[in-house]
Amino acid sequence: MIQSPSHTKRLRLGILCLTLIIGVLSFSCNQEGKTENKTELKNQKPVLSLSTSEAEEIKGLLAKNKVLKTSFDQHQKKADKAILNGVEIPMPKDPGGGYTHEKHKRNYGEMYSAGIAYIITGDTKYSEFVTDMLLGYAEMYPKLPLHPKSKENHPAGKLFWQGLNESVWLVNSIQAYNLVSDAISKENKTIIENNVFKKIAEFISVDSKKTFNKIHNHGTWAVAGVGMTGYVLKDQDMVDRALYGSNKDKETGFLKQIDMLFSPEGYYSEGPYYQRYAMMPFMLFAQAIQINQPDLKIFEYRDQLLGKAVTTVLQLTDENGAFFPFNDALKEKNYLTSELIFASNIAYAYYKDSSLLPITLAHEKVSISGAGLEVAKALKSFKPKAYEKKPLLITDGKDGEDGGLALLRMPNGKKDEKITSVFKFASQGMGHGHFDRLSLFLYDGKKEILQDYGAARFLNVESKKGGRYLPENKTWAKQTIAHNTVTVDETSQFGANVKASSKVSPKLLFSNLKDSNLQIVSAKEENGYEGVKMQRTITMIKNQATERPPFIIDVYAIKSKEAHQYDLNFMYQGHIMETNFEYIKENTLSELGAKNGYQHLWKLAEGKSDQNFATLTWLNQNRFYSISSLISPESKMVFSRLGANDPDFNLRNDASYMLRESNKKDHVFINVIEPHGNFDPKLESVQNPHSDVSTIQLVYSDDNYTIVKVIFKNDEKYTLAIVNQEHDPHKQHQITVDDQEYQWTGNYNLKTN
Amino acid sequence: MIQSPSHTKRLRLGILCLTLIIGVLSFSCNQEGKTENKTELKNQKPVLSLSTSEAEEIKGLLAKNKVLKTSFDQHQKKADKAILNGVEIPMPKDPGGGYTHEKHKRNYGEMYSAGIAYIITGDTKYSEFVTDMLLGYAEMYPKLPLHPKSKENHPAGKLFWQGLNESVWLVNSIQAYNLVSDAISKENKTIIENNVFKKIAEFISVDSKKTFNKIHNHGTWAVAGVGMTGYVLKDQDMVDRALYGSNKDKETGFLKQIDMLFSPEGYYSEGPYYQRYAMMPFMLFAQAIQINQPDLKIFEYRDQLLGKAVTTVLQLTDENGAFFPFNDALKEKNYLTSELIFASNIAYAYYKDSSLLPITLAHEKVSISGAGLEVAKALKSFKPKAYEKKPLLITDGKDGEDGGLALLRMPNGKKDEKITSVFKFASQGMGHGHFDRLSLFLYDGKKEILQDYGAARFLNVESKKGGRYLPENKTWAKQTIAHNTVTVDETSQFGANVKASSKVSPKLLFSNLKDSNLQIVSAKEENGYEGVKMQRTITMIKNQATERPPFIIDVYAIKSKEAHQYDLNFMYQGHIMETNFEYIKENTLSELGAKNGYQHLWKLAEGKSDQNFATLTWLNQNRFYSISSLISPESKMVFSRLGANDPDFNLRNDASYMLRESNKKDHVFINVIEPHGNFDPKLESVQNPHSDVSTIQLVYSDDNYTIVKVIFKNDEKYTLAIVNQEHDPHKQHQITVDDQEYQWTGNYNLKTN
Repeated sequence: MIQSPSHTKRLRLGILCLTLIIGVLSFSCNQEGKTENKTELKNQKPVLSLSTSEAEEIKGLLAKNKVLKTSFDQHQKKADKAILNGVEIPMPKDPGGGYTHEKHKRNYGEMYSAGIAYIITGDTKYSEFVTDMLLGYAEMYPKLPLHPKSKENHPAGKLFWQGLNESVWLVNSIQAYNLVSDAISKENKTIIENNVFKKIAEFISVDSKKTFNKIHNHGTWAVAGVGMTGYVLKDQDMVDRALYGSNKDKETGFLKQIDMLFSPEGYYSEGPYYQRYAMMPFMLFAQAIQINQPDLKIFEYRDQLLGKAVTTVLQLTDENGAFFPFNDALKEKNYLTSELIFASNIAYAYYKDSSLLPITLAHEKVSISGAGLEVAKALKSFKPKAYEKKPLLITDGKDGEDGGLALLRMPNGKKDEKITSVFKFASQGMGHGHFDRLSLFLYDGKKEILQDYGAARFLNVESKKGGRYLPENKTWAKQTIAHNTVTVDETSQFGANVKASSKVSPKLLFSNLKDSNLQIVSAKEENGYEGVKMQRTITMIKNQATERPPFIIDVYAIKSKEAHQYDLNFMYQGHIMETNFEYIKENTLSELGAKNGYQHLWKLAEGKSDQNFATLTWLNQNRFYSISSLISPESKMVFSRLGANDPDFNLRNDASYMLRESNKKDHVFINVIEPHGNFDPKLESVQNPHSDVSTIQLVYSDDNYTIVKVIFKNDEKYTLAIVNQEHDPHKQHQITVDDQEYQWTGNYNLKTN
Repeated sequence: MIQSPSHTKRLRLGILCLTLIIGVLSFSCNQEGKTENKTELKNQKPVLSLSTSEAEEIKGLLAKNKVLKTSFDQHQKKADKAILNGVEIPMPKDPGGGYTHEKHKRNYGEMYSAGIAYIITGDTKYSEFVTDMLLGYAEMYPKLPLHPKSKENHPAGKLFWQGLNESVWLVNSIQAYNLVSDAISKENKTIIENNVFKKIAEFISVDSKKTFNKIHNHGTWAVAGVGMTGYVLKDQDMVDRALYGSNKDKETGFLKQIDMLFSPEGYYSEGPYYQRYAMMPFMLFAQAIQINQPDLKIFEYRDQLLGKAVTTVLQLTDENGAFFPFNDALKEKNYLTSELIFASNIAYAYYKDSSLLPITLAHEKVSISGAGLEVAKALKSFKPKAYEKKPLLITDGKDGEDGGLALLRMPNGKKDEKITSVFKFASQGMGHGHFDRLSLFLYDGKKEILQDYGAARFLNVESKKGGRYLPENKTWAKQTIAHNTVTVDETSQFGANVKASSKVSPKLLFSNLKDSNLQIVSAKEENGYEGVKMQRTITMIKNQATERPPFIIDVYAIKSKEAHQYDLNFMYQGHIMETNFEYIKENTLSELGAKNGYQHLWKLAEGKSDQNFATLTWLNQNRFYSISSLISPESKMVFSRLGANDPDFNLRNDASYMLRESNKKDHVFINVIEPHGNFDPKLESVQNPHSDVSTIQLVYSDDNYTIVKVIFKNDEKYTLAIVNQEHDPHKQHQITVDDQEYQWTGNYNLKTN
């Protein structure tokens, strides 16, 4: 039973409801009208993901359902190849990437595929392969010591150097065993269950209790493996430990993880790159719970949190499907990954959310499971369309109080494409977090315009430090200067200290993403630098002249009693076309600074201007982009390029443009970011290659209000008033500046002309 | 009559043939069996590209033929918009890019579209628009002086600053007039013909005689405009001047241009980027000749040269359809350009070459003409497939004696994709030529692996020097160091002197592109540097282990009596993964050299090695690439990046890797270039990230033979013998080196294991 305090009410209602239907058959109790009871109780063998009758149905559909066929064929082919190669269970000795490590990983994948091949075809060569493999492990596992390559201060495994892999092994292997167990003799079952599954579950849940009870994705893999094993071995105690923690006190375990690791919208604080990975054990175990303990209503738990988590991780992708590269993230990774095939299939099956179908269609594959079967059937009559990316505010922290993310999205004038601006004011995100508070990302359709570096890592490429995170990940990618935000005094936020940074989060001040003409989000960060208070407000505005794409007003207000240097850096992508100011290029290149990431930037040029705004225009493929900035004659515009102090050519050679304000206390950066015009070398045509901004003014700025005004060359005027404190959507504000009265209701106001 | 010497034989045969068929009706004399007599003599109005009956047929098909409809709609829409805006004929005053320049360009485009709209719909609002426009020009043109912005030493126009635009105006406007002339009163016709077309034809063919008689694409536009005007005005003298030159002596004019500007395979020595542009007047005028003087058999002329030229320019594209960036070329330009819609439609109509249909399908548009009609009908039953790119040897020079190009192409293991290696040993290519003899380009599928910079230019982008060629085009892009070839003593070939370079060409020594296991081309350049003889042999070899993509052995042999520095530079595209040698990175960056392009390279690092071969491996998207080079302890491996001495950020920041040999007389560079392995961040899998080359040996080298041996880690051995002189495919060769006998027949030999 679920007893997390916030759900007591729902439970009471549930019990009442159950009472009412006593005696009424085939009526499902369902507040939201979405859950279904899919269990087939008559089936004696416990089911984790695929019942015998579902397997029969899949078998029958293979001839006519292409996606099922493709998906199944891959398993069968893999299993056939594995059988040809024979069973090999090497004594564990190598670290990650080494032979025994990779072989034990391959083994569970092959067992799983053979399990699928068996349940669909009934061919016992597949079940025999799994049985032989598991009997082999039964020989070896009980005698195994901790892995010889395990590291101090890092949870160890036995088959693998780290415990995480051991849990992943279990999640896969228990499914394989479950799929073929009908075909295994009673004697062998006993051997396998006693010498493999009980032993490994004990190792994970008892010997490695600390990880098992961790509120962390390593813990999720651990409880998922042990919980699924509990169902298969019909060991409810094991299941309960997985659900409620070692002590079954609900202080840890799966439900607590759901409570603690996600925000109310289902955001996982490490960021979408890691959320993708974490969703797999969450969804696989939830599916097993739903089948075996439907009364737990796991998919309804915490207001359908698991469904929200799947939607959120999918929304946190760009138009290539790649995850927004928050924190340590490989930019190449997208939602076509196997983890999200499982997760999105299960989410579709339990929430019947047809908005997921464009994703499952893009996968061109389903999981061979009851959930995958439902998706495959649904795709039969699905008319292809793009996955709808929406403007979204996603809070961070279990109560949604630890800042968050805003996705500002407006059509860019091309079919199915949007201008997307991501504003990140989230919590640290644990050890993989970057010091990137109040940073901005900009996309135009499939193109990165203002980029985040992502992680410095070439996954699995041996020559790049064995595929692990590179040293430059710490010295560059995590540092504040690597992000499109303000760096104070050439140091990173919190002195790049994860512990300090994890204690406090930025705060959302206000937002409105529902207005089709204007999307606005304001957030503050007051702890990253001692004595420096920062508030950034990102506003995306639909042009009055409708054929132009939307533009962004970026107001970054800083308050400090001491004087500092403020560097607002933009990692722009593209080729510089023009500036409205002079700059001097360096004849020899040196580092921009000594440390905190600055040592990796070659300083290329520095500009100054007597005008009161600076414009940089660059070209990215077929469109121009400009940043126009309010400046003073003391402001510096600094051009740099990545690559200094990079002995192994680990870094990309990305460009950056920095607005530098020195010796300032309070300061307001105002930037207008415009996508504009068109460059078509095929038609040899160029339109609007110049920025259309003619003036930027800081009309007013104090503790209460910031008012900025942007005037375009065609005389369109945009006056944006921002409320800096006491946020209340109903409050009336009034202020007179230079005899002009500004008056509005709510947290912001945009006046046009 | 055609009397170019090389065609006398064919002519005699033609005359004989004509004699034989006297009195035999409706029998067409046709050696090749391809030409057709498409003229409709009954039609009184001369036709340039679209007869009334073809227009009727198009009209009838619009409802059912989508490509015709789309193509026509664009013209009609343009015409409708133009009519709304009204006729404006400004007094010429602005240079290229300025208002009056662009307006006169727009005018001819709008007249042409209105002409199309009229002949298809019969709506006189379109013919009236053209008439009004032309009457406007009739008012202005006779009184016009030379354009005020015309430049000394550059042929002037009247409507435009340069004569070229005047010719293009005529080519378009005469077609527009021809399309609507039925609807114009006799009086107005007289005014228009006398005051516009005769005047402008006279200006182009008489006043600007020098350009008119030039064997150059400016000359082609001139003769095309005048010749087409001659047909419309029924002025055979005008036509003859266009065909045979001002003096009608056949020393200049259209036929002479066909003779002189193309190689026997139809290569245009400025390169495919300019050939694309030149093909339009060639094909439009040829079409008009075919319709009006079918006896000239213009499409048969010089062994169907025009058809070959269209095929050649299409084959000279990469798998994105972009033209190989020889000489001054914008890399974004591809075969979806309007010039090639006209050209490929006409080529299809007259040669019935269905291999062109994938291209015309990709255009999603046809020209509204008799030729376009044939294409549109053919596309109806055409099953889409990729345009087949073939291994090809294309000679340069009118007799095919001025070097050439080799396109080595083998499947890369992915569907419809190839590894393409382009070897350029062509003539200078006139003023837009680069000093790039013996340079190499490498593509893998759609990706550039070893790139040529192309031109330093942002076409039509005002802020980049008005869209003209940038200063860095001369100081970088044309220089030898910007290309994947050897630079001697840090100077460019021929001291970057076009005149000197234009006098001599590299020579093809031998080639074989027909063997599916091996493609080989050898060429020499002995004039680029005084006293330095260079021979480069590019061999693409299919791996014995078939799943690996093909690799390339690049043997670059240099002979000199004096000692020099030889820099073999590779502009690789991708991210460095590893080297098998140590290098020292620079702490501050300086230029690699003082001039000849070196001043634009930042020197990043320099490596040396005690081993006898150096390997650099880089990653480009999902595949690894390695260059393994035979070196000595004196060899230097130099890493650099473009961007120095670039005050306006005009250059891209491309990377290069250079093998530097100092103080050498004779030297043989041997490089093995391997695409290998696989990087799949979605599946988190990496295969074969390392080069498989284990040894490179120069077995033998003298004036007669070069023998190299490459051994792979799996013990595959490839011994390549190259004959350096007296090339003869039948000659037997024998040589003993270290007691081992090498014996073969022909210009090369590859021994495996």
